[in-house]
Amino acid sequence: MMKEMILLPMNEISGIARERERTMEWKKVASPQGYYHRFPAVILAAGQGRRLCGSSRMLKPLTPLLGLTLLERSILTCQEAGITEYYVVVGYGKEKVISHIEELRSRYQISVRVVENPNWKEGNGTSVLAVSKYVSDPFLILMCDHLFEPDILQFFVQAAQGSDVCLLAVDRRFDQIVDLEDATKVRLHGQEITAIGKRINPFDAVDMGVLLGQPMLFSALEQARRDGDGSLSAGVRYLIDERKIQAVDVSDWFWIDVDTRESLIHAKRTLLANLSKPEEDGFISYYLNRHLSRRISEQLVDTPLTPNIITALSFLVVLCGAFLFSVGGYFWTLLAGLLVQLGSIVDGCDGEVARLKFQSSRFGAWFDTVLDRYADVAIVQGISYGYWLAHPVAFTWLGGILALTGFVLASYVKKEYTLRYHHRPPSGLLEKLSKRDLRLFGLFVGALLNRPFEAMILLGLVSHVWIGWILLTIYRQKRHKPLCN
Amino acid sequence: MMKEMILLPMNEISGIARERERTMEWKKVASPQGYYHRFPAVILAAGQGRRLCGSSRMLKPLTPLLGLTLLERSILTCQEAGITEYYVVVGYGKEKVISHIEELRSRYQISVRVVENPNWKEGNGTSVLAVSKYVSDPFLILMCDHLFEPDILQFFVQAAQGSDVCLLAVDRRFDQIVDLEDATKVRLHGQEITAIGKRINPFDAVDMGVLLGQPMLFSALEQARRDGDGSLSAGVRYLIDERKIQAVDVSDWFWIDVDTRESLIHAKRTLLANLSKPEEDGFISYYLNRHLSRRISEQLVDTPLTPNIITALSFLVVLCGAFLFSVGGYFWTLLAGLLVQLGSIVDGCDGEVARLKFQSSRFGAWFDTVLDRYADVAIVQGISYGYWLAHPVAFTWLGGILALTGFVLASYVKKEYTLRYHHRPPSGLLEKLSKRDLRLFGLFVGALLNRPFEAMILLGLVSHVWIGWILLTIYRQKRHKPLCN
Repeated sequence: MMKEMILLPMNEISGIARERERTMEWKKVASPQGYYHRFPAVILAAGQGRRLCGSSRMLKPLTPLLGLTLLERSILTCQEAGITEYYVVVGYGKEKVISHIEELRSRYQISVRVVENPNWKEGNGTSVLAVSKYVSDPFLILMCDHLFEPDILQFFVQAAQGSDVCLLAVDRRFDQIVDLEDATKVRLHGQEITAIGKRINPFDAVDMGVLLGQPMLFSALEQARRDGDGSLSAGVRYLIDERKIQAVDVSDWFWIDVDTRESLIHAKRTLLANLSKPEEDGFISYYLNRHLSRRISEQLVDTPLTPNIITALSFLVVLCGAFLFSVGGYFWTLLAGLLVQLGSIVDGCDGEVARLKFQSSRFGAWFDTVLDRYADVAIVQGISYGYWLAHPVAFTWLGGILALTGFVLASYVKKEYTLRYHHRPPSGLLEKLSKRDLRLFGLFVGALLNRPFEAMILLGLVSHVWIGWILLTIYRQKRHKPLCN
Repeated sequence: MMKEMILLPMNEISGIARERERTMEWKKVASPQGYYHRFPAVILAAGQGRRLCGSSRMLKPLTPLLGLTLLERSILTCQEAGITEYYVVVGYGKEKVISHIEELRSRYQISVRVVENPNWKEGNGTSVLAVSKYVSDPFLILMCDHLFEPDILQFFVQAAQGSDVCLLAVDRRFDQIVDLEDATKVRLHGQEITAIGKRINPFDAVDMGVLLGQPMLFSALEQARRDGDGSLSAGVRYLIDERKIQAVDVSDWFWIDVDTRESLIHAKRTLLANLSKPEEDGFISYYLNRHLSRRISEQLVDTPLTPNIITALSFLVVLCGAFLFSVGGYFWTLLAGLLVQLGSIVDGCDGEVARLKFQSSRFGAWFDTVLDRYADVAIVQGISYGYWLAHPVAFTWLGGILALTGFVLASYVKKEYTLRYHHRPPSGLLEKLSKRDLRLFGLFVGALLNRPFEAMILLGLVSHVWIGWILLTIYRQKRHKPLCN
């Protein structure tokens, strides 16, 4: 059996995941990850989902959530975690689900096999049984209606390496479960699962909906079905008797079982709330822009606009602002300030849409950064030109260049620092003050007060002060280590 | 014995080496290096070195070479390879050597133990015997008159992990040895050494002067000494009989035995020649600046100027040039052009001196890059101001800003690319044309033709075209991978 395993370097597996990473995380790249066994994923999408869809003609796997269907989200989550082979089990409304899978297959160029389960009414265990003729090695089982972070799956796959029993992902934070009554609970003894069911008591955790299946699971499911219960939980109960099922604790991450309209709304809210990056976002971004950009992104996910197009749109909005600054006069200046601040808000949407729709890319992140710098250049040219109309002296332009270099070099110095030291420069008030969100907001306030040029000079100075501060800080640190000149 | 081993992560060991690396190499950081055993280094500095110093009062370990003594170079090479514990064996002229070691100890804050060998006249084997009461674990033996790249030592230490026999670094390129007649040759059978000596024939390689010693070496040396030969080679010959000595091939790197005045001059020339970076240097840097900066660096290494001070000096020279550009008039413009080109040449010296004197640091590299950008800003301001005196229109400044952003963003885009993709952007003609060495040379030529502003605009445009080209290139590459939006 070992021979048939597909072993490939973790680098390659997580290639897609990293491709999608919006920001570099040094540690992840540097840590040796060794080799991974790549499991196929069996996604269960055969049930009726009556609690979510009711009597409507909607199908649960096809339920849209922030621009993607639930099934699409499941597959893309798997893909981000490095999975490349999929079996989707269909049953209820199979024609529509199959045609949706066809769409996904061509859109994402993925290897999906559709497996029909005529006995879906007997329970989700029969859906797993339906794949028994296709898989013989260990495989992952996922529910199309469970949303979770790709990190959960990566962690689970890591824990599953070399395991010869079945594994079930469980969450001990059952106080945070939306619909605890309906959740499947498990009782634990160490890693061992000793009981499973919706009505067991006491219990230690809840079933999170991700399993590692082994061939032995099929016979357990057969047996349970013969005994009249076609659910996956019933099969797992037989494994308990044979001590063939253990728990993997995934209590560190976000996941949700989208079973009702309420949980769908809750999932949507949480996905949107998770878009904030408290560690990276500047003051304005965190307290103002994110709240607005999230609302815009919520609408944008339903359009065919890609993140890169949104980046370009945000750039164009700022360019218009920059041009209006050069016209002069309070009305145009104010409008220019508004456009620049709008551009700053929309600038957050590209990354948000990318994360919501699994479209993050290194190119996108890089493109965004480069256009941001060009937009800054345009703004400075516009403001300086507008000011020069009233003050046609060289110092207008020298001031503009001073501000511009502060804006560009503040970012430049950060990149260079990250390249040399393998982590971001120390954060702090000055660093936050030299960030782009505050810069554009400052220019907006300057425009409001009809003093955009003065605001620009002030913001430029702040950036230069930050650069001086960081140089001095690092120089001092280094002096304490005499070995490192 | 295992208990006494000092195990520490490779990260930590190579910390100093990396601290000293002038440019980031991604692969080195990303590859998992595991754990290393840290050997102490025994440096033999007891001999008279008559062939090098003759009847002069010079001592071989104290012979200066490009700003450092031979002994200092040996120790710093070890340090760069991650070694932290040193035994220096002294004999001939020991008072002076010991007082020099005291100096080194306080200058570099290193742990050095001086071991006296009163029997140094009997051969270098007695110098190894002199440390027998201090070391019991495996240890490295080095000659203070052998210069080599730290990479040799890192490779050797890697090969020596867990070895229970003695190891000798050998070089198969004996046709390139300066003084082959005097070199110690070895005959090989696979990794096994089967004969060693200056006059053996045939031979397969030459002794490079780095050994891994084991406690058994001491008894071999004792025996050889009792038999009348106190040389290290004689001791090794006894190990051959016991099959306790193997060879490690280090034919990939530069090393030299500094035994005569000729080899000292050869070493100096090679160290200077190795300062070129054919892969990184631009056209002007490679064909013009390096030839001049090497000559300047050759002088600078004998001054107390640190690389960071040289960086600052080069910055000041360019600042003077930038100021003179703003004065206007052909004479000042020409002088400004000359100063800018001089600054460009001196800008290479900081890195060269740092590498020659083992003073490279991340801070230094970062400081250099940041000052380069500020120098570019000053030049653009100077040239634009000078042009504005004759052409007081806004387009002068808009052109200046265009050029400036080309200069700064060309570098910015490269950094950002390296951060996202973990390697440098693809090189090519446009990339070379947008490098700083060519930019400053172009401004010098512009000054020569009394057209610095026009030259600046042209160079700025080239940079913007490069940025556009690289964005387009990467965008096209990515379109061929539909998974990675």
